[in-house]
Amino acid sequence: MCNHLCSDKWNQLKEQAEVINQPENHLKNLIKENARLEKFSLKGGGIFYDFSRQRLDENTLKLLLELAEERKLKAHFQAMMSGEKINTTEKRAALHTASRDFSNNAVLLDGKDVMPEIRKVRDEIKAFAEKIHSGRITGSTGKAFKHIVVIGIGGSYLGTEFVSEALGAFADKQIRIHYLANVDIHNFGKIAASIEPETTLWIVVSKSYTTAETSANTEQAYAFMKSKGIDPAKHVVTVTAKDSPGDDPSNPVLASFYMFDFIGGRYSVTSAVGGVPLSLYLGYERFERFLKGAEEMDIHAKTAPPEKNLPLIAALIGIWNNNFLGYPAQAIIPYADPLRKLAPHVQQLYMESNGKSVTKHGEFLAEQSGVMIFGEPGTNAQHSFFQMAHQGRPFPIDFIGVINPQYTQYQTTSKGVSNYQELWANLIAQPMALAMGKDDADKSKFFSGNRPSSTILLNDLSPENVGRLLAFYEAKTVFEAFVWGINPFDQFGVELGKKLASGIRKEMAAKNQNKDHCFDQSDAIMKFYLETLFSGKL
Amino acid sequence: MCNHLCSDKWNQLKEQAEVINQPENHLKNLIKENARLEKFSLKGGGIFYDFSRQRLDENTLKLLLELAEERKLKAHFQAMMSGEKINTTEKRAALHTASRDFSNNAVLLDGKDVMPEIRKVRDEIKAFAEKIHSGRITGSTGKAFKHIVVIGIGGSYLGTEFVSEALGAFADKQIRIHYLANVDIHNFGKIAASIEPETTLWIVVSKSYTTAETSANTEQAYAFMKSKGIDPAKHVVTVTAKDSPGDDPSNPVLASFYMFDFIGGRYSVTSAVGGVPLSLYLGYERFERFLKGAEEMDIHAKTAPPEKNLPLIAALIGIWNNNFLGYPAQAIIPYADPLRKLAPHVQQLYMESNGKSVTKHGEFLAEQSGVMIFGEPGTNAQHSFFQMAHQGRPFPIDFIGVINPQYTQYQTTSKGVSNYQELWANLIAQPMALAMGKDDADKSKFFSGNRPSSTILLNDLSPENVGRLLAFYEAKTVFEAFVWGINPFDQFGVELGKKLASGIRKEMAAKNQNKDHCFDQSDAIMKFYLETLFSGKL
Repeated sequence: MCNHLCSDKWNQLKEQAEVINQPENHLKNLIKENARLEKFSLKGGGIFYDFSRQRLDENTLKLLLELAEERKLKAHFQAMMSGEKINTTEKRAALHTASRDFSNNAVLLDGKDVMPEIRKVRDEIKAFAEKIHSGRITGSTGKAFKHIVVIGIGGSYLGTEFVSEALGAFADKQIRIHYLANVDIHNFGKIAASIEPETTLWIVVSKSYTTAETSANTEQAYAFMKSKGIDPAKHVVTVTAKDSPGDDPSNPVLASFYMFDFIGGRYSVTSAVGGVPLSLYLGYERFERFLKGAEEMDIHAKTAPPEKNLPLIAALIGIWNNNFLGYPAQAIIPYADPLRKLAPHVQQLYMESNGKSVTKHGEFLAEQSGVMIFGEPGTNAQHSFFQMAHQGRPFPIDFIGVINPQYTQYQTTSKGVSNYQELWANLIAQPMALAMGKDDADKSKFFSGNRPSSTILLNDLSPENVGRLLAFYEAKTVFEAFVWGINPFDQFGVELGKKLASGIRKEMAAKNQNKDHCFDQSDAIMKFYLETLFSGKL
Repeated sequence: MCNHLCSDKWNQLKEQAEVINQPENHLKNLIKENARLEKFSLKGGGIFYDFSRQRLDENTLKLLLELAEERKLKAHFQAMMSGEKINTTEKRAALHTASRDFSNNAVLLDGKDVMPEIRKVRDEIKAFAEKIHSGRITGSTGKAFKHIVVIGIGGSYLGTEFVSEALGAFADKQIRIHYLANVDIHNFGKIAASIEPETTLWIVVSKSYTTAETSANTEQAYAFMKSKGIDPAKHVVTVTAKDSPGDDPSNPVLASFYMFDFIGGRYSVTSAVGGVPLSLYLGYERFERFLKGAEEMDIHAKTAPPEKNLPLIAALIGIWNNNFLGYPAQAIIPYADPLRKLAPHVQQLYMESNGKSVTKHGEFLAEQSGVMIFGEPGTNAQHSFFQMAHQGRPFPIDFIGVINPQYTQYQTTSKGVSNYQELWANLIAQPMALAMGKDDADKSKFFSGNRPSSTILLNDLSPENVGRLLAFYEAKTVFEAFVWGINPFDQFGVELGKKLASGIRKEMAAKNQNKDHCFDQSDAIMKFYLETLFSGKL
């Protein structure tokens, strides 16, 4: 099978991979090149991206840029930002970039400017947050809100969680944030044990307002409020599509904020999905600064020439490592504890977008699409799975460094350096150790090296930089999709499991209704699990 | 290159993989076999393990069991438990199983029974925890302890964090637990903002007491206590090797508990490493119940015949999926929110143990050793990376189900089922959807199926079951290592990075001493990073 991927350019890159796989092109040799860092690093969109420790040379980069040209990556990105319906299977636009557009330009969708609606929602969020923070809106017993619980799953919370953790040091509104995503009752139970019902605001985030987990958790939250004598109409906010069941005047809530079908869940943290909880937790002003950082990266991705374009080059390197050098996974290792939820967020963003096997023209792909993403903060990861990174199965790594920490008051020294310098000593050492390796006659102490990584630097963990980093990974994700010609905005892969679960749920409901119900309609394995659950023991 | 892995048995399994890769052996066909579940599931060590949705048949299993025989897996495990120095590179035993041995049998190491020392430490932990809980030991200002901060990294905290999260619903000692692992000052800053110095006990966990991150964090903690007028001698506990710098009478602490060189970090949660913090957080009695669950699984792994041995079979399936079917990664998806830290723990346990490329005889392995491990709780993962699991790059999955939740008081229903039943409907549906797939003329809605998974069931999230689950993954990890003939107890792969970091630290210290210090000794790339950090901006 061979489809459009088998172009001349693709084949030239296959040949180039054979060149790079030669021993003389081991990374320990490549990085000795004169001005290696200058040639293979970029500054743009407010961040720095160093790919000097990737397994490539100037010819590789040239071929990859020609591939970018052939696949029209920038044209696709511009089409996306301008409202074209590039989510072809669902016949939708993908306008997450509009949610952080502060220009005065129109963004036309079916001939209509979407920006007035977007600005209106932002203004509503700002006004609402101010009323909560000033105490003009309180809970049903008159107390100020001290807890917010975000009820939502997948794209309705992972991005928000990433940002709230990244900027948690700035949360000065005396409000704690909790995430009720899992339908597992343990998630609810843990939250119920740590909030006060009178001071808790529940934010239900669901575009359709029919997501099974979110509906079930919302029902549980309503029952909980009522059992505590709390009026849900004064404690619930919805973020949902216009005219969804969550936007029903017969079921009054404190406020409703709209989300739009032209912004997909995993790209939605800069919309009301992130906007409502983050503005309450951090203040609207910080949320807007976060948006402006993302906007800056969007403009960079849209306008910078390919050879200067950070997310585009990062995407080409992703393709290179995956399709040509054969690495099936990638790790994201921020040397910054507040970025601890970046990897889970990008894991969703990237794996749900690019875990596909069909082109947008409905053909099976001849090559592998997206890789697996995982990661933990450094230096923690060094003491966890970096043994494998150095001496086992290799995987490319994105290292992320932050020059200035959020906390400056702790300055003890150990071995002549501050703790933050110690962190950086490791951040500097690891990519080099992975690249260089080390010979040793004792093979258990031999390091093969030639293990690729990039290093991204941020000036600090400001709201702007968190926005830039988010938009960098969003743009990288879609640029890779454009190379393969897949649609990164649908997710039909989640449907089959949902459908089977629906059949099983019906069997459970029947048993709840009638204890004598047998599961004879189910296949033998499923029947075993149903019977085990209802029997209550192994 | 071909070493001992290329045995006849190995080659027969290669041929068997070709058979299983035939279209007629698609999982949707294999699982139709009569009594499929009965043939390919096991109960033992207190848990249930279903591998009916793995891509294997009776002949595969027979060959794998013959491989187990050839590689003497059980003999190796018994040697490990009986104190043989199977950590050959470091000339140490690997006696983590002794730390949960409640029999009266001796465990001899160099002719000396280690059990009296182990029992003594357990008794000391029990007595100490009781004194803390009863208020007989308080902080230096007379207040009861309400916070414990575990200072330790890698194996000194990941297992403890896993268990404390799994059993957090039972934490009734009015004590909160925090983990200070990362030398990143953000980790310290966040904890400092959420504790009260007067009611905080710091537990420093480090075998050598020289781990750079832990030393730096301990220094910072001491400075913090002193700045708040707190006497560290009354607020610090150490868990360390006898005669380490943490066991120095000239530096008095509240208590010291010993760890032994025959228990490696990533296997140490059942020793004082987990014992001290978990006994304070949960009570010693629950910690002991956790140990007894682990002991039960150890005895099962040691004594059950191979064809009935859960971790041994799970290890053989790991080898099958990795070396014969070619899957480079594995996901762990507990349908139980309290098990949210299981995947990060097993990620360390497994990847640090089996991320090797050298046999214990010092030869390079001809085949790949361990796979990459990642995971998040279900159903969350379904709304994150399961798109890829169903339609993108395939990876085997361990699903984990819990029959009875820790919380029973929340019983609202949605669509006729409770939230916990909804969770289970998904747990039952996913392995089947992955195995079966679905035809569809629209290729974007086509599911190839044939994606393997196992399902593990626990009766509940009791301390015993958490212990069983932990010991299951520990035993599975070492059984896989025994197949390859690698040493799962060393970690020389972390040394090169440490060494390079040490050189960089010296450069930083020189600059801290003398502002005019240049980094001309460093390579151009490292120099750039050093200058960037000291300049404070990009």
